Amino acid sequence: MLKAVVVGAGLAGLAAARQLVADGHEVVVLEARHRVGGRVEGMTLEDGTPLELGGQWIGEGHDRMRALVAELGLTTFRTYNDEGRLTLELLGRRTTMAAHKGAVPTLSPFALADLAQGLRRFERLARRTDLERPWATPDAARLDGQTFETWVRRNLRTRAGRAYFRIACEAVWATETADVSLLHALFYAHSNADLETLLAVDRGAQQDRVVGGSVRIAEAMAAELGERVVLGSPVRRIVQTADGVRVETRAGEVHAADHVIVTLPPTLAGRLEYDPVLPSWRDQLTQRVPAGSVIKAFAVYPEPFWRARGLNGQVASDVGPVKVVFDNSPPTPGPGVLMGFFEGAAARTWARRTPDERRAALVACLVRSFGPDAAEPVGYYERDWMAEEFTRGCYGAHFGPGVWTAYGEALRAPIGRIHWAGAECAPRWNGYMEGAVRSGEDVAREVGR
Amino acid sequence: MLKAVVVGAGLAGLAAARQLVADGHEVVVLEARHRVGGRVEGMTLEDGTPLELGGQWIGEGHDRMRALVAELGLTTFRTYNDEGRLTLELLGRRTTMAAHKGAVPTLSPFALADLAQGLRRFERLARRTDLERPWATPDAARLDGQTFETWVRRNLRTRAGRAYFRIACEAVWATETADVSLLHALFYAHSNADLETLLAVDRGAQQDRVVGGSVRIAEAMAAELGERVVLGSPVRRIVQTADGVRVETRAGEVHAADHVIVTLPPTLAGRLEYDPVLPSWRDQLTQRVPAGSVIKAFAVYPEPFWRARGLNGQVASDVGPVKVVFDNSPPTPGPGVLMGFFEGAAARTWARRTPDERRAALVACLVRSFGPDAAEPVGYYERDWMAEEFTRGCYGAHFGPGVWTAYGEALRAPIGRIHWAGAECAPRWNGYMEGAVRSGEDVAREVGR
Repeated sequence: MLKAVVVGAGLAGLAAARQLVADGHEVVVLEARHRVGGRVEGMTLEDGTPLELGGQWIGEGHDRMRALVAELGLTTFRTYNDEGRLTLELLGRRTTMAAHKGAVPTLSPFALADLAQGLRRFERLARRTDLERPWATPDAARLDGQTFETWVRRNLRTRAGRAYFRIACEAVWATETADVSLLHALFYAHSNADLETLLAVDRGAQQDRVVGGSVRIAEAMAAELGERVVLGSPVRRIVQTADGVRVETRAGEVHAADHVIVTLPPTLAGRLEYDPVLPSWRDQLTQRVPAGSVIKAFAVYPEPFWRARGLNGQVASDVGPVKVVFDNSPPTPGPGVLMGFFEGAAARTWARRTPDERRAALVACLVRSFGPDAAEPVGYYERDWMAEEFTRGCYGAHFGPGVWTAYGEALRAPIGRIHWAGAECAPRWNGYMEGAVRSGEDVAREVGR
Repeated sequence: MLKAVVVGAGLAGLAAARQLVADGHEVVVLEARHRVGGRVEGMTLEDGTPLELGGQWIGEGHDRMRALVAELGLTTFRTYNDEGRLTLELLGRRTTMAAHKGAVPTLSPFALADLAQGLRRFERLARRTDLERPWATPDAARLDGQTFETWVRRNLRTRAGRAYFRIACEAVWATETADVSLLHALFYAHSNADLETLLAVDRGAQQDRVVGGSVRIAEAMAAELGERVVLGSPVRRIVQTADGVRVETRAGEVHAADHVIVTLPPTLAGRLEYDPVLPSWRDQLTQRVPAGSVIKAFAVYPEPFWRARGLNGQVASDVGPVKVVFDNSPPTPGPGVLMGFFEGAAARTWARRTPDERRAALVACLVRSFGPDAAEPVGYYERDWMAEEFTRGCYGAHFGPGVWTAYGEALRAPIGRIHWAGAECAPRWNGYMEGAVRSGEDVAREVGR
């Protein structure tokens, strides 16, 4: 008899399975897709250049990821950052500025003071959140009773100050300030050190990348697990009996085990069939934790031409539709890759247009920041994560108002022999690859006891 | 070939099928349960008394329901109301007051003025909402960017005024003010005339009941449809091809048709499998429109003893856990039935306890209002709508902040040959039996063209 069936071969599922095997247990990992990695995905250009279509960064403090990368024989390199200046488009003005943590845009003294005070207030509240039990945070009902947007309107007085927080929200959650509970924004910032760290490259959440692409982590774990990982097997139904679980795939295969670890994002976990049906507090939670909205797009050039001009390839913009751009070139000499996100409202709008239209929109944004040399990329690639049947939105799930306080306890609590893992379940580094791996390993240790 | 497969034999599905058949088309209605009615459900006590476990009221202005009831040979009667006084528990004080539309609680002049001004402000905003396209309401982004709770805190100054709106929110949406977008609260009130009408009995949304129970409406429609209604057939998968749809049940039956009309609440519609998969704007909508939280509970007594004491059996309370009570006795001489709702936070908490504990909680609430005669009901019955696999929450779905403005268009827009109907889809009388029937008939006329 298997110790566990693991549903999903993303980082959480692979890490859970690997931990269980290390502890001497037998497992099967059922993956809906014909590849591993989940929200981490790779592709390779004709010349061998790897592109990362999904999650890619290892940030400062992501210690488990660093150790795992080393265990798997992989290496990291720095995101291209402080070698050049970043481009800022704010309130109709385009400027460049030095790229280092804590850098603030060139603004009027009034806007600067407003932004500084807003950040201070936000961080002060964020530090008070209870990471294990956000609903037990002091004053949780009031914090969870309002949107992040309400807080921004109340606490920022200048257009620039408000724009900063709204761009930050799109960059971090791929959704709008209207959609997110203030308590969730605070919890999430605290879970990932603080808002500044979330937005930063050096000493921040975007600090490092994996040589060869982040998908190598998933592939290396899957290689260790060998035939335990079954691809192309979407799970449809989970049956609990007195002495175990039975996990049924859409193709009609049945896997019996002592436990099942479901690593799908909450909204997808809620779409499986369960017998007996899940209790209402768990089911109603999964009705209320939607995924963000993002399309990740790439323009490839013969070389990273912007570097020679003292630019680091990064853009932060309130114009859009692509508001965040990074130099995503490989660490070795080769093509120049600019990567941009359609996030939140922009993603929802542009998902209804054609790839050609999105290509043109990305290129137009890049030309504004990098000049006419950006006008003719040799390649365009994209991944609309909302359209993926087995993801249905990225970067991760967010909690709207009222949800943490009413349903938070149901996020990780097992239902009999059903356990929940994934980036959304992590108290620390929630939403990141780091959180996913920690969550998978934590649950595996519980199950393996 | 069938004109349409209708998914769900609730009022919307039955009304859609009936309309199509009336227009000369052939249909099949697939119902997951072994009964018709969906969120409308009946049961019969040993002495023949009907209980209504789900939706039951026909309000003022519900003209389609009135006509339908007549077409089906059924009759209505008035909810027991102005023959007695209702009981109010507010801020630790219990009083009784006359029961008529527009009645306001006995409060301090300051609280009364506060409440009156709050209601006036709310109704003024509500009247401006665009019922067909709530996202096109003037100032929609600002209204949808905040919770109803934020609005209540800003616009009501007194504890009594705030308590009134919070109880109203629980009574109307079975959820808390933190959970609902202000724009949704406004839209919904306007869709149902106004907030006062939503809360009222005479000349309000709770005005009339159906003799024999509301389920008779569903049963009579199903009887007309005969073998076209297939019970015990949960739909699992919808396949669209070039020339039609194929609807597959969990048992593996396949029904082919020109169209499919899905009448499930949005969150459940989102859990079906679709081939090709649904576009992201539709899928992400269904991740964001959760069902409310309610347990409907009944205490049955040998007679409606409260009537002789000049009480109409109604309670509105900020104490709880049962905050709203009605005299739900049948119109003929017989037992006395008091019906109470565990709503919102109370429903979520009390769902985790036993039926005996909920019975004791309901009885304790009734004893406070109706004295020791309420202490020993001869029967207790309940329906936890959150626990129902094929409903997963009542009264209906609500929109949190940001959802109407980002995803509203996806609520009714067909996806190829897939059409959406149900109480949630109705511009007028949204959330009520009236809205469900109108929505079903409207979609049937579109499909039948």
